[in-house]
Amino acid sequence: MPRSGAEARRRLQQAALELYRERGFDQTTTAEIAARAGLNERTYFRHFADKREVLFDGQAELRDTLVHEVATAPEGRPLELLLHAFLKAKHILEGNRDFSEPRCAVIAATPALRERELAKAAALTEAVAGALRQRGVPERLAGLAAQAGWAAFQRAADEWINDPAQTLDAYLRRAFDDLGALSAAASQGSDGV
Amino acid sequence: MPRSGAEARRRLQQAALELYRERGFDQTTTAEIAARAGLNERTYFRHFADKREVLFDGQAELRDTLVHEVATAPEGRPLELLLHAFLKAKHILEGNRDFSEPRCAVIAATPALRERELAKAAALTEAVAGALRQRGVPERLAGLAAQAGWAAFQRAADEWINDPAQTLDAYLRRAFDDLGALSAAASQGSDGV
Repeated sequence: MPRSGAEARRRLQQAALELYRERGFDQTTTAEIAARAGLNERTYFRHFADKREVLFDGQAELRDTLVHEVATAPEGRPLELLLHAFLKAKHILEGNRDFSEPRCAVIAATPALRERELAKAAALTEAVAGALRQRGVPERLAGLAAQAGWAAFQRAADEWINDPAQTLDAYLRRAFDDLGALSAAASQGSDGV
Repeated sequence: MPRSGAEARRRLQQAALELYRERGFDQTTTAEIAARAGLNERTYFRHFADKREVLFDGQAELRDTLVHEVATAPEGRPLELLLHAFLKAKHILEGNRDFSEPRCAVIAATPALRERELAKAAALTEAVAGALRQRGVPERLAGLAAQAGWAAFQRAADEWINDPAQTLDAYLRRAFDDLGALSAAASQGSDGV
């Protein structure tokens, strides 16, 4: 048996990912995941509520970190608070680098996992919008900022997973720069695309 | 029997919405929806693939309209192309005003419907990003613009559903102005929230 809960969780995630890739999500049972990890099914359900949750273990930590970092960031505009928070949270992705690429591929190929991912992202952006409001960002801007910031973060994470030649830090800064350029351009009027 | 497919679809949607509100989504069957609409279950499945699709009938039209309007919009910056397209598509929401409020309430209260809504939104923003790329918007900006624009559209639609004192047109313009202000600020540096 693994010595710690954290180790059990990691083994279950690794086993699930392997089985989802080998057989597909629908053809895999929680009992098989537990067996591959050298654990029993009861242990599986002590750690994860269902067959989908096992691939989203880092989400709660990411959400809590972002909310905390928005709350404690230096003064700044909404997207600056968000960039600060994402830079502080990037170690969560960096610590799971090997896991990230196959995980993304399995989620993209599995509608049930894709839906769970989208639901997690929606809950996370709502939590981040709440943290922005707590910092005094107007209600009307907080939700838009959180969603735009999340889109930038996702783009940066995808780029980094596909091409680790640059750091996640660099991809994040560039994605937030793009977000600024995008809308700054929109408010300057049209001069061609 | 209804005279047209469109009428059958509308009756099925109305019946589903009533039953989901009265009993809850999980406690309702497609046979019951068809019966409430005065139709049989076979007709239900001729129009909708499952119990969730019945509440997302306008999504394909919205996506196709947005893609067409982005493709044919006057020259403009990415967010201008998007505002143009959303203004051209707003009649789809306006034609379903009475349906919108209860529909939103049922979706918000039902995780399975919320997941389907998020999946539809993701597919729609990917299609819109593709249309932006076709217009020459750089790859790196197209996805961000589509997601930020969709967030602005959703905010405007929510505001309009909750308070029809202003037009959807006005809410859309204000949400896109907010998006512009938000990101323009991001590129000007910090001077407080």
